[in-house]
Amino acid sequence: MGKDKVSLTVVRRLPRYYHYLNELLEQGVNKISSKELSERMGITASQIRQDLNCFGGFGQQGYGYNVKILRDEIIQILSLDKKQDAVMAGAGNLGRAVANHIDFESKGFRLVGVFDTNPQIIGREVGGLVVQDITELPDFTKKSKPVVGILSVPGNEVVDVAEEMVSLGIRAFWNFTGKDMVMPNVIFENVHLGDSLMTLRYRIENDTDE
Amino acid sequence: MGKDKVSLTVVRRLPRYYHYLNELLEQGVNKISSKELSERMGITASQIRQDLNCFGGFGQQGYGYNVKILRDEIIQILSLDKKQDAVMAGAGNLGRAVANHIDFESKGFRLVGVFDTNPQIIGREVGGLVVQDITELPDFTKKSKPVVGILSVPGNEVVDVAEEMVSLGIRAFWNFTGKDMVMPNVIFENVHLGDSLMTLRYRIENDTDE
Repeated sequence: MGKDKVSLTVVRRLPRYYHYLNELLEQGVNKISSKELSERMGITASQIRQDLNCFGGFGQQGYGYNVKILRDEIIQILSLDKKQDAVMAGAGNLGRAVANHIDFESKGFRLVGVFDTNPQIIGREVGGLVVQDITELPDFTKKSKPVVGILSVPGNEVVDVAEEMVSLGIRAFWNFTGKDMVMPNVIFENVHLGDSLMTLRYRIENDTDE
Repeated sequence: MGKDKVSLTVVRRLPRYYHYLNELLEQGVNKISSKELSERMGITASQIRQDLNCFGGFGQQGYGYNVKILRDEIIQILSLDKKQDAVMAGAGNLGRAVANHIDFESKGFRLVGVFDTNPQIIGREVGGLVVQDITELPDFTKKSKPVVGILSVPGNEVVDVAEEMVSLGIRAFWNFTGKDMVMPNVIFENVHLGDSLMTLRYRIENDTDE
């Protein structure tokens, strides 16, 4: 909508601002300086000013940020207020955990279908939806036109499942399989849970050395 | 071990280098220029040089990086080769997904115990371990001295569980509850799965606008 493109590194920090600003609002805090926000978040104040300036800047020198306005701006920047439909392939432990724990609505999505191949899982309720046979996916997709596929199938199935979904018109994926996916004109948000565990390993070693 | 402290932003990128370098090794690629690595990873070549220079730099001008040496250096920087013991509290869908999907050993940890309060879950096998009653945690911790706690309990229990674990000597946590935890002299690696979903929402909106 006329906004300049912002680096993905900055975009990836916005959800953190969003969490902190929500917490502040819950605590009844209405304005905050970049210095205070910086201390809470462990990011330098100049980084914060720089990040928020990418989107036009919302602070006033000597006044700070209006918490609610800034939070609402982040919602708009990320388009969290415009919901899109998502379908999930794979309702094993990982899929069930994602479907049950993630609040899709607050993140700009609606989970509208969950699919699996396992007869013992099909028909069970996951994330408020009845798991359907994956063979129903083409018909479902033609009717519902979901925008996003959530990939929580085993890693060796991800290429086939993603290709099928792309052939059905899905162009964006949230990929939990641990296998980095790249396809032309398709967006893959690849989740590597283990990356944060590696970071924790580093932090333990380097904090205990201090 | 005498290394200067590196910013956590850089450390958080190291697992991505690690994945790509492993893939290259599997493909039989032994050396790579920062330009090629940059194209594969979607990071600028100058960012790559800057990142790796934080750790002393491993490239030679006009030659590139030796893939195996660089991969092994990253293992050492992150201390992935020195395993530490971890216990998990909470073996619901999320805990089971984490225990079953994460290769702890390759990330510098060993999962040595899984605990829950639910009689229907206690006694089941999760991640190769039999789930124990959480009342066993103090005895277990005294004997095994785990370094890390994995928090996959419901969000409203996380403060109590973390405080108990800290009282038992655990000083680092991998926290999946979605509730940001901060305690003095305790390391929390807080995982927000939803953050990557928000990023995906942004990417969809801004790529379709192009």
